[in-house]
Amino acid sequence: MDQHELIAVPWRGAEHVDAALARYFSLSRTQAGKYGHRFERLWDVIERNTTGGKRFRPRMVMAAYTSLGGADLEAAAQLAAAYEMLHTALIVHDDVIDRDFVRRGHANVSGSYRDIATTAGIPLPAAEHRGMSAAVIAGDLALSGAYRLVDRTGAADNVRFRLREILDDAVTAAAAGELADVDFSLSPRPPSVDDIVEMERQKTAVYSFEAPLQSGAVLAGAFDETIDELGEFGRNIGIAYQIVDDILGVFGRQESTGKSTLGDLREGKRTVLTAQAFSSELWGSVADLFGKSDLNEDEAARIRGVLVDSGAKGFAERLAADFANRAWEHLASDAIPASLRDELSPVVRKVLERVR
Amino acid sequence: MDQHELIAVPWRGAEHVDAALARYFSLSRTQAGKYGHRFERLWDVIERNTTGGKRFRPRMVMAAYTSLGGADLEAAAQLAAAYEMLHTALIVHDDVIDRDFVRRGHANVSGSYRDIATTAGIPLPAAEHRGMSAAVIAGDLALSGAYRLVDRTGAADNVRFRLREILDDAVTAAAAGELADVDFSLSPRPPSVDDIVEMERQKTAVYSFEAPLQSGAVLAGAFDETIDELGEFGRNIGIAYQIVDDILGVFGRQESTGKSTLGDLREGKRTVLTAQAFSSELWGSVADLFGKSDLNEDEAARIRGVLVDSGAKGFAERLAADFANRAWEHLASDAIPASLRDELSPVVRKVLERVR
Repeated sequence: MDQHELIAVPWRGAEHVDAALARYFSLSRTQAGKYGHRFERLWDVIERNTTGGKRFRPRMVMAAYTSLGGADLEAAAQLAAAYEMLHTALIVHDDVIDRDFVRRGHANVSGSYRDIATTAGIPLPAAEHRGMSAAVIAGDLALSGAYRLVDRTGAADNVRFRLREILDDAVTAAAAGELADVDFSLSPRPPSVDDIVEMERQKTAVYSFEAPLQSGAVLAGAFDETIDELGEFGRNIGIAYQIVDDILGVFGRQESTGKSTLGDLREGKRTVLTAQAFSSELWGSVADLFGKSDLNEDEAARIRGVLVDSGAKGFAERLAADFANRAWEHLASDAIPASLRDELSPVVRKVLERVR
Repeated sequence: MDQHELIAVPWRGAEHVDAALARYFSLSRTQAGKYGHRFERLWDVIERNTTGGKRFRPRMVMAAYTSLGGADLEAAAQLAAAYEMLHTALIVHDDVIDRDFVRRGHANVSGSYRDIATTAGIPLPAAEHRGMSAAVIAGDLALSGAYRLVDRTGAADNVRFRLREILDDAVTAAAAGELADVDFSLSPRPPSVDDIVEMERQKTAVYSFEAPLQSGAVLAGAFDETIDELGEFGRNIGIAYQIVDDILGVFGRQESTGKSTLGDLREGKRTVLTAQAFSSELWGSVADLFGKSDLNEDEAARIRGVLVDSGAKGFAERLAADFANRAWEHLASDAIPASLRDELSPVVRKVLERVR
């Protein structure tokens, strides 16, 4: 998932987050230096794989924190950086699982290490294996980075404890979602729409929306009611976002989403869109094309036609709107101060705009 | 690596460590249950992959803690459990990197998940991929477990901070060692003996000896001098242990080491033994056999012959003894109380006995 400009730039605390991450990488590189320059280089590759992102999760942390009255941007930036590192860990390992060597048009960690190996004359299968091995290691380091950073807020013990709990839950949810995703891709029986929604929520929405928002609120010393409502908001907007992302993955234009709209179809990615279409009798005419690794544009157009004619596209759009509306409702709660509502409303609007 | 009975059983705090791990798994399973029974099952597989071990790292933590006057076995057991989970994370991901589906004769995490898939009728390549995917996820959960547990000692902030630093260093060292190991296996130029010693120290000795011993001492409130000497002891005995392990991996009997003495030769594993032999002119006669995936017993015997005749085996034995002797020296330091010396001496003797 790639959250495009969901909230307005510039955002409060952006430079603090950048500084916190830069400091973290600098310290890690120094520590790595004890073990030789090769290992130091791994940190360069990891850092490059974070700076490509939009810092969406840090933004969620900072948005909740600052609009709930938090004033220590330094402290919040450590927490925000923790979620950036968690994101890095999860995408690096997700790429290992998906055997991907490219992310958003650039070599990822696996790809970078594969390319270094091929340049050194190592044959491709061994080079790919080296790439994936380096990525397993890099993901571990990034995950440990999330735990390191979350403790650097200098918060009181009870606050620190809650921040750790939220991080732990986010890691657990992401692991559960990843496992479900792997299982769905292997199962001969297509998962239901509900299964897909739950899997996408676990795999991405929790650590991208719920956990960063709630963490920022906890650090700001928000009331429990506010934290709960924020969690509900995050859950619903996160699911809406994922559904929109799946629609754009098939119908969006490559220029705006940064990824080919053939990719998801070639991969046979299970989404709300396809889960709904599977139950239509129209699906039979394109079932063989779905997941075809060399699918061409004409074939993709035929699948898209069925997704439209079967009503699956319309269904997915309505479902996304439903979840976005639930997000609105939670944002309208009395427990959400106006400042926070103002900060997060553009996120909801943007999600809805993307699908129109 | 598999530390066989390095210290006498029973050991102090063993039941506390078992209880801490059982509690950790029980809590994790409950938390996982929120995400469905499939995910809960992953925890069963992870737990099974820890109980096969000898709890060597927990023993090191408890040995240092109790013989330095620590009395809160509950607290120390959390720390000990953290190192068991770190060990689990590292071997699970190491198996992903080595594409191993078996460890000590039993299906590991990758193997268990592969077997569930093949039983369900999924063809082997997809089943293996699922196994490795589950293992990537399981390793992440175990790593996060190490960070969760290390904070459960209830220690004061300054102690907690040091415990976290030691854990962070152990994770970093293991990552560096793993990366070096991957690189050595791909490099056409054989690594030097020093390279191998340093790689093995980083990959295994730091998190198995140095870090658990130092952590136990820190939690017990030991003097800095004692902590430093323990680190040096751990480093040297850890390296000695690894060298002995490599010798036994080629010359040991399967019954005593639990692994085939063909495995390392078939894999072409770079060790002190082979690094030394590479430089001998005798090596040329068996170079083609080393790393041959279907190596038979006769061919293995020819390689062993060269390892003996070239002096590599004797060299490795002397090197292990040198490191063990350095470990003795640090143990003899005034900074090490007699109680701790009594606890750790059997470890050194056992390492030296194994190679005889």
